[in-house]
Amino acid sequence: MPDSFDRIAVLGLGLIGGSILRALARGGYVVSGYDPAPAEASAARGAGYTVAASAPEAVAGADLIVLAMPLPRLEAALVEIGPWVAPNTVLTDVGTLKVPVLQAVRRRLPGARFVGGHPLAGTEESGFLAGHPLLFRDAPWALALEPDTDLQAWLSLAVLLCDLGARPVPTTAVEQDVAIARVIGLPHMLAEALALTGLRGGELGLSLAAGSYTSGSRVARTRPDLVATWCDGNPGLVAALDDAIAWLTSSRDVLAGGGSVRSLAEAGHRARMEWEHREFGPVDLPVDAEALRQHGRDGGWITAVVEKDGPDLGELRLLGMRPVR
Amino acid sequence: MPDSFDRIAVLGLGLIGGSILRALARGGYVVSGYDPAPAEASAARGAGYTVAASAPEAVAGADLIVLAMPLPRLEAALVEIGPWVAPNTVLTDVGTLKVPVLQAVRRRLPGARFVGGHPLAGTEESGFLAGHPLLFRDAPWALALEPDTDLQAWLSLAVLLCDLGARPVPTTAVEQDVAIARVIGLPHMLAEALALTGLRGGELGLSLAAGSYTSGSRVARTRPDLVATWCDGNPGLVAALDDAIAWLTSSRDVLAGGGSVRSLAEAGHRARMEWEHREFGPVDLPVDAEALRQHGRDGGWITAVVEKDGPDLGELRLLGMRPVR
Repeated sequence: MPDSFDRIAVLGLGLIGGSILRALARGGYVVSGYDPAPAEASAARGAGYTVAASAPEAVAGADLIVLAMPLPRLEAALVEIGPWVAPNTVLTDVGTLKVPVLQAVRRRLPGARFVGGHPLAGTEESGFLAGHPLLFRDAPWALALEPDTDLQAWLSLAVLLCDLGARPVPTTAVEQDVAIARVIGLPHMLAEALALTGLRGGELGLSLAAGSYTSGSRVARTRPDLVATWCDGNPGLVAALDDAIAWLTSSRDVLAGGGSVRSLAEAGHRARMEWEHREFGPVDLPVDAEALRQHGRDGGWITAVVEKDGPDLGELRLLGMRPVR
Repeated sequence: MPDSFDRIAVLGLGLIGGSILRALARGGYVVSGYDPAPAEASAARGAGYTVAASAPEAVAGADLIVLAMPLPRLEAALVEIGPWVAPNTVLTDVGTLKVPVLQAVRRRLPGARFVGGHPLAGTEESGFLAGHPLLFRDAPWALALEPDTDLQAWLSLAVLLCDLGARPVPTTAVEQDVAIARVIGLPHMLAEALALTGLRGGELGLSLAAGSYTSGSRVARTRPDLVATWCDGNPGLVAALDDAIAWLTSSRDVLAGGGSVRSLAEAGHRARMEWEHREFGPVDLPVDAEALRQHGRDGGWITAVVEKDGPDLGELRLLGMRPVR
């Protein structure tokens, strides 16, 4: 079986880091947190968690370090903790975009056993007090398996994430960011566009805005600096916006020409219903990086890492789920 | 005080018509429903409501007729009930777009005491069984007051809607449709665009889609034929789409040029938060059509119609709420 982690450090105790701290402690792991913001640190300490006085203190002796600070602070944190990271220590992160984090780690800690991660969980709220130990239950968690990623480190993290109830999705930084552009970046851009231009019709429109405006603009409640870190520098988002703009322009032209948007609406309706009604079935996976990445491309995730029995006793067996058509 | 209604007919017992039937019966009104679909009619009858065997039977003797059938069936219904509508009977409807309904009534029942209505309530579900008597509690309800609308009929309806807990918003068909384009048509178009192009990134994106994709595409669950009746033929929606496309194109160009969408996201965030945190205060309104329309333009609605006391005893007094800046 892959190594399990004896001592875990979580740097950054906002919504995601704070929820990881809670989930790990609840799962019986020895975990220590740190946050430079006194409010987050004391909220976590007040809730009974171990919180270190500095990042080096938190990471000293840790065999897993979870980087859960905002992206703009990640590179400085790598510089600060660098001298305290042992050669065998595994590092992971929770950022939305995986390419910028991978680049920062390669620049600052080129030899590190780093595995980029991205839990697809959260709300439009933020801060330690908004977190929950069950936030990751059944949540997809992208886990980057680059050609140079240490497969044992990746498997150890996959076991840990399954233990937290999450669904590790094998992918790469580049593929993750392209996929995320369409399901995180694009919905945020559309919500901002709706929040802003939807209300440009004046006070009458403001007072008539109801369900569809409310849900369509919900994520415009997110802090704009966070939205920027999820969108900026992601070339996949330019392509996603081009597709959405092209579709909206077709609708606009059909309406301006006196036609009906019915067939366009049918296509959107079908896409949403197909997504909602996907079905999944179990699959047995080889312990092979490219096979795992293909499993992620096919819409699959890992559910368990177990030892084989029978003649191959002691060899690893990966169990997963994937879409069934 | 304006006349109250002694006998009400509701034609069409889907989500909205069925909820109106329930709300009126619950409010002590004598109300009879009708729906040509046996499923809706028998669901309403089974729930204990009076359901007529035909539209003429439902409207005979009614002093208020609520047209709650889908827009494509409205004109045929007007032809069918025409001979049974008494000169003093008030007609209203519940359609999303008010201009096409007004045109149909002027074509088919030119002398009718018609007041167009649009309750801003509902879900992406449909049918009698999806309805609820409290669906309209605190819901805005656009009530068209055209230059040739009978003000007494309009006031009688406003009293009835207040009695159901709704918020009558004085407006005109044209102004309503322009406003609705931005808060109903546009969010539906954006949801369809997201449902469709958001998932064009393949199975990996499908499995990583989470909160922001889910809420952003929620109303793509709506039946596409309904979406078409809310969008088609509304010139205001072309302008709304132009605004949204322009905003999305700016974002796309900023991203393609290596810039940040932060200031664009800040504008969207500000719009959403301002909408969410509006405050309202009470206002006294004159019984004057243009003053009422202006009240609607200013984001206000009617809360009660009462008789004045003191020296003007017997004259009407309209109470309303409007945004406070």
